[in-house]
Amino acid sequence: MSRNSRRGPGALALLALVSAAALAFASHVTGATAAAAPGPVVEYWVAAVPVTWNVVPNGRDAIGHIVYPPEQTSFRTVVYRRFTRDFAKPMPMAAADRGMIQGPLIRARVGDTILVHFLNLDTAFNRPHSMHFHGVHYREGSDGAYIPGFSGPGANVKPGQTFTYRLVAGPDSAGVWPYHDHSPSMVDSIGGGLYGALSILAPGEPAPDREFVVYLESQLGFMTIDGHAFVGNTPVFHARVGDLVQWDVLSLGDEFHTFHVHGHRWATPDGAVRDTQTVGPAESYKIRWREDVPGTWLYHCHVESHMMNGMIGIYRVSR
Amino acid sequence: MSRNSRRGPGALALLALVSAAALAFASHVTGATAAAAPGPVVEYWVAAVPVTWNVVPNGRDAIGHIVYPPEQTSFRTVVYRRFTRDFAKPMPMAAADRGMIQGPLIRARVGDTILVHFLNLDTAFNRPHSMHFHGVHYREGSDGAYIPGFSGPGANVKPGQTFTYRLVAGPDSAGVWPYHDHSPSMVDSIGGGLYGALSILAPGEPAPDREFVVYLESQLGFMTIDGHAFVGNTPVFHARVGDLVQWDVLSLGDEFHTFHVHGHRWATPDGAVRDTQTVGPAESYKIRWREDVPGTWLYHCHVESHMMNGMIGIYRVSR
Amino acid sequence: MSRNSRRGPGALALLALVSAAALAFASHVTGATAAAAPGPVVEYWVAAVPVTWNVVPNGRDAIGHIVYPPEQTSFRTVVYRRFTRDFAKPMPMAAADRGMIQGPLIRARVGDTILVHFLNLDTAFNRPHSMHFHGVHYREGSDGAYIPGFSGPGANVKPGQTFTYRLVAGPDSAGVWPYHDHSPSMVDSIGGGLYGALSILAPGEPAPDREFVVYLESQLGFMTIDGHAFVGNTPVFHARVGDLVQWDVLSLGDEFHTFHVHGHRWATPDGAVRDTQTVGPAESYKIRWREDVPGTWLYHCHVESHMMNGMIGIYRVSR
Repeated sequence: MSRNSRRGPGALALLALVSAAALAFASHVTGATAAAAPGPVVEYWVAAVPVTWNVVPNGRDAIGHIVYPPEQTSFRTVVYRRFTRDFAKPMPMAAADRGMIQGPLIRARVGDTILVHFLNLDTAFNRPHSMHFHGVHYREGSDGAYIPGFSGPGANVKPGQTFTYRLVAGPDSAGVWPYHDHSPSMVDSIGGGLYGALSILAPGEPAPDREFVVYLESQLGFMTIDGHAFVGNTPVFHARVGDLVQWDVLSLGDEFHTFHVHGHRWATPDGAVRDTQTVGPAESYKIRWREDVPGTWLYHCHVESHMMNGMIGIYRVSR
Repeated sequence: MSRNSRRGPGALALLALVSAAALAFASHVTGATAAAAPGPVVEYWVAAVPVTWNVVPNGRDAIGHIVYPPEQTSFRTVVYRRFTRDFAKPMPMAAADRGMIQGPLIRARVGDTILVHFLNLDTAFNRPHSMHFHGVHYREGSDGAYIPGFSGPGANVKPGQTFTYRLVAGPDSAGVWPYHDHSPSMVDSIGGGLYGALSILAPGEPAPDREFVVYLESQLGFMTIDGHAFVGNTPVFHARVGDLVQWDVLSLGDEFHTFHVHGHRWATPDGAVRDTQTVGPAESYKIRWREDVPGTWLYHCHVESHMMNGMIGIYRVSR
Repeated sequence: MSRNSRRGPGALALLALVSAAALAFASHVTGATAAAAPGPVVEYWVAAVPVTWNVVPNGRDAIGHIVYPPEQTSFRTVVYRRFTRDFAKPMPMAAADRGMIQGPLIRARVGDTILVHFLNLDTAFNRPHSMHFHGVHYREGSDGAYIPGFSGPGANVKPGQTFTYRLVAGPDSAGVWPYHDHSPSMVDSIGGGLYGALSILAPGEPAPDREFVVYLESQLGFMTIDGHAFVGNTPVFHARVGDLVQWDVLSLGDEFHTFHVHGHRWATPDGAVRDTQTVGPAESYKIRWREDVPGTWLYHCHVESHMMNGMIGIYRVSR
């Protein structure tokens, strides 16, 4: 995302776009729902909206004792935000999404059909956008990835336009997966925050008591977790002894990371135990444990330059 | 591989080398075969031969809309090519090898003895070369890796010379593995394309209906698949619904990659499901699925700068 | 670690620090031991001590034929070294630790309580240091990681001070894990060699006949194994046919590596077989096999620029 971002046409133009889209969408969506496969249907309304994002809101690196003026840490960008049915209005953020650059955590269970209704409200850069989902089943038209000469409208949604992606959570979709822009503007847009996560439970699998999304990326040269850098800005995750906690660890961009939590270990699907694990671009995994160690702990990327450049946060466990 | 490559001594000199080597080899090979272990013996004749390779044959990045003149995308280099018995003549390329920079896909089954007869025809740079094989069993002399003061003739095969590597596919050799130059010139040579793959079936394992080799490397600053960059140059892989497809994913060089295929997922040996997977230098894996989704799909490295710099291709599934 | 390192106060001052600390510690430690959990207790006395370290002691890259003068390859730094009980005197190095930059290999078995008594003798830079351990269980106070506003004395041990870390090897602690400085000076200190390994056996698991620690890091721009670069400086590991050999592979810093051993393969916990495996910063694994191939073999990082820049060594198997 360019630091010299153009200002969009302003709030009035945005409102006009929303209203027109909501009207157009209300009728479009009916057909999509009617054609849904048997099984529960989960629906999300997600728009790409302009925001001004500050990577270091408190202006400091508390460990390195460096102070950053806001003009070095803020930029104009476009992010995914959840709306109420038919894009009537922006939805108040769920706890799992609050204060994070990424879009809504899309929750489903194996067997569900997931309809994601997408509206491009990018009045900041006036770029096409799309949504491309990992881990789920879909037909070619819902792939959301631009291929010259082949891809359809879902890969190149122009400002003011909508598209519905029809996804199915198959038996092999259980877990945590990224979604992101895959339109012709994807590189700038992903760097700018146009990404999010799917969290899909297996049949009969209990939901966790706490679910923490850790999205590793970089913005404005900082190494970020959920769009923020440095302790005091990155999320402080809370749990109690006895909680079933789940960490959703994802990464996008150019970098490889090693995710580490202090004082804890987890089993990988192969039965091995780790406390540090590589996550490359578009890889993702979920980690679960029954919490049993009270304290104030660090979680961070163990690549040292990433950790020193902001990719570190605090996890607090109370009794 | 240097961009200012010296021209070799030309076609006549090359022919003379081939003829002399073929004669010398015909007698040498008899002894090697006679001493083979019990069990089926698979034989390959492979030479290092000079070629002029164009990384972007059609001259364009179809997604980024950039045009490259051929002098920016071509270089003189040395690659492995398969020959008929006793190096009588170059062998017409099998479908799995056609249009790809890497050497022949060496196929075997657990229990086989594999004899690879190597001939160095590097008249372009006049360098020593060798073959070092991953995944298979062999004695010290067939290691092919240069160690000052220790290694033998198989690690330093001079132009015009031959060497036979004797390999055994053990029970733990099933899978996909790289081979590559490990002589004193290995760094330039691997970057220039002197590498290939072994594909070894387990006892009773069915051969796939389609086998796609995806070799991730870089040449001339482009990020390449099988020596080519950008959609329109990288391989277009074809399958039909119902096919058992196998992807052989390998990497060499300095970079880590995350291999991703759109619209598909696969199980790893631990039972986990992924649609994106890290592959570092000399790592390799095979991915299998029974195809069930028609369409035109992307496969690519998900490191964004790699994808934008050419590491992306098309996979077409017909009904 | 800065190349322009300040000289410490010299041997006399160091001796004075040791003596004072040993006296203070002898009484302190009694309490710690008395409060230990039931089960065997393993105790280590480890100090951070200044050394002058030469990354290329023989001054040459034997494969690349480059000569390095000692002033380009030596630096003043601080490393972990084992002492006898109550820090009475430095302990002669065990075979597994000899000639290596990293601290002592801390050995334990699942069920053990491990007390690591740490003494900061950093008279070279006069920095705080600490020890942070992966893979084991501990309470908040033994975490050893500096968190502004939260962490205690174990995360910021000043020169001349001591701290005892109380660790428990739980059922999920079997394996190989890193330990390292996590104090405010951690970045300089880890780069300078302030790290080591834990090796924890599962209940009933036989100890290997040979255990090789391969610590991948970088120093002075060289890519190092156990603090040394290039064949002739990196460890030469020895085994005999029939030995149960174990490789402890660890990495710290900023780089990802792929560890490879020639002529051998190993099973990962998921049952897959590999001969090359990614290890990112703070990742670690142990590899075991029953040796059956005599010869002189290479082990190295397969990232080519790392291998060419020193991350390569020799493994000799005799009959």
